[in-house]
Amino acid sequence: MTAHDFDAAIDLEPLGDGRFRGHTHPAYANMVGPFGGITAAVLTRAVEVHPDRLGEPLALTVNYAGPVADGEFEIRLDAVRTNRTTQHWTLELTQDGAVATTATAVLGQRRETWSDTEARMPQAPPPDELPVSPVPPVTWAQRYEMRFAEGPVPGHGVKPADTSTSTLWVRDSPTRPLDFTALTALCDIFVPRVYIRQARMMPAGTVSLTVHFHAVGDELRDQGDDYVLASASASRFSAGWADQSATIWSRAGVLLATTHQLVYFKD
Amino acid sequence: MTAHDFDAAIDLEPLGDGRFRGHTHPAYANMVGPFGGITAAVLTRAVEVHPDRLGEPLALTVNYAGPVADGEFEIRLDAVRTNRTTQHWTLELTQDGAVATTATAVLGQRRETWSDTEARMPQAPPPDELPVSPVPPVTWAQRYEMRFAEGPVPGHGVKPADTSTSTLWVRDSPTRPLDFTALTALCDIFVPRVYIRQARMMPAGTVSLTVHFHAVGDELRDQGDDYVLASASASRFSAGWADQSATIWSRAGVLLATTHQLVYFKD
Repeated sequence: MTAHDFDAAIDLEPLGDGRFRGHTHPAYANMVGPFGGITAAVLTRAVEVHPDRLGEPLALTVNYAGPVADGEFEIRLDAVRTNRTTQHWTLELTQDGAVATTATAVLGQRRETWSDTEARMPQAPPPDELPVSPVPPVTWAQRYEMRFAEGPVPGHGVKPADTSTSTLWVRDSPTRPLDFTALTALCDIFVPRVYIRQARMMPAGTVSLTVHFHAVGDELRDQGDDYVLASASASRFSAGWADQSATIWSRAGVLLATTHQLVYFKD
Repeated sequence: MTAHDFDAAIDLEPLGDGRFRGHTHPAYANMVGPFGGITAAVLTRAVEVHPDRLGEPLALTVNYAGPVADGEFEIRLDAVRTNRTTQHWTLELTQDGAVATTATAVLGQRRETWSDTEARMPQAPPPDELPVSPVPPVTWAQRYEMRFAEGPVPGHGVKPADTSTSTLWVRDSPTRPLDFTALTALCDIFVPRVYIRQARMMPAGTVSLTVHFHAVGDELRDQGDDYVLASASASRFSAGWADQSATIWSRAGVLLATTHQLVYFKD
């Protein structure tokens, strides 16, 4: 059995003192540097493997401060405060001493309480009833199988769309069991919403990504390597900036994560 | 003319080396320590007054790592990366050397582009046609005038609500012109959504707050001291955690900010 490229891409070598060495992986390359989702995933991974870690990921914010060059990088992270049920982390990804990415993470304990999901899962045919969609022409996108249920397939829209909403079934390709790192990466698989609205590509990229993890107990393990239903839309485009909010659902209707990002664009 | 308590509460004394001294203000007290919104606002303020600042606030994430005691605090902040159109900050609020709050902020240039608002402004009667609502029994809430248009008034719901949505007109009391700091604080004026669903109070609090600022050019100045329409709801409650997403609108229908938080609760 060969290790999945995803695991190779988030592999970290401990350097001591809360420092880890990682390296970009060609399988997750973007047009320039790595896929933002894999960078977010390796930051989640750094917290997971840190010996001081207590609890599970609850909230993550990643700020893409500058380009990540292909090659080695270093992650420095610190549990700046550990409470009884929460732990607060700050993280920095550097290359040659220059900060490329900053992040904060909140970990915590989950315990039985009243629960309810208010958000509605988007309606979509089962994945097997939808064709496999062509993915965007970047390397990392080949690492996902996408089956669009709502909205134009990016790059194949004939005209500008009235709304930016995309809803698709998606899973790792080849498949891989879902965990917090893979869920983190899935939160960033959407093309910039402005591509959908304008039916064309333009310079655009995520500057800040926030993930709120909702999966509880066995919900991630139960997911196995099945598809998730991922749905994204923007609230406002203006002055070179747009937001994007997305929900990530299991086939059984479990809301696994909500995620929000701020994206720059140049039209 | 007397300075507004809000301005006193976010006032900072420069200590050099990217450090500032602030102090909690009794007018913005919560049950324990200060209102989370005023802590977020003073962090926005710290970036605004820092001599290295370039651009306007675009994204802010504040993590409430531990309690803030009444009294002095210190904010240390650093522009870890300055690009041509964006600037990335990390911030820490400490008391006696202990980290109480961490934050990151992204600033940037806004420039003319294609624009569109996809989110729909919630329907609500004009504020003057709605009664002033009683505010929650905490000091900071007296600093806001609230007029509820949708959802039970917190503390006055007779029974658990089917949805957590609250929509209200709100402005500073006494009134004060809107700016990025006041807008930051407004993003946190909602009671925990679980109070609405359960029609009762319980231990609950924000652990992570993200704001995406959408206001462009004169949109904040044009707002003056008028009401904003603020609408919040949760996606999922589970295992002691819930999210909350909110939109902040001008009366004219300008989406000024979107905001997302993760909240703990103990039922």
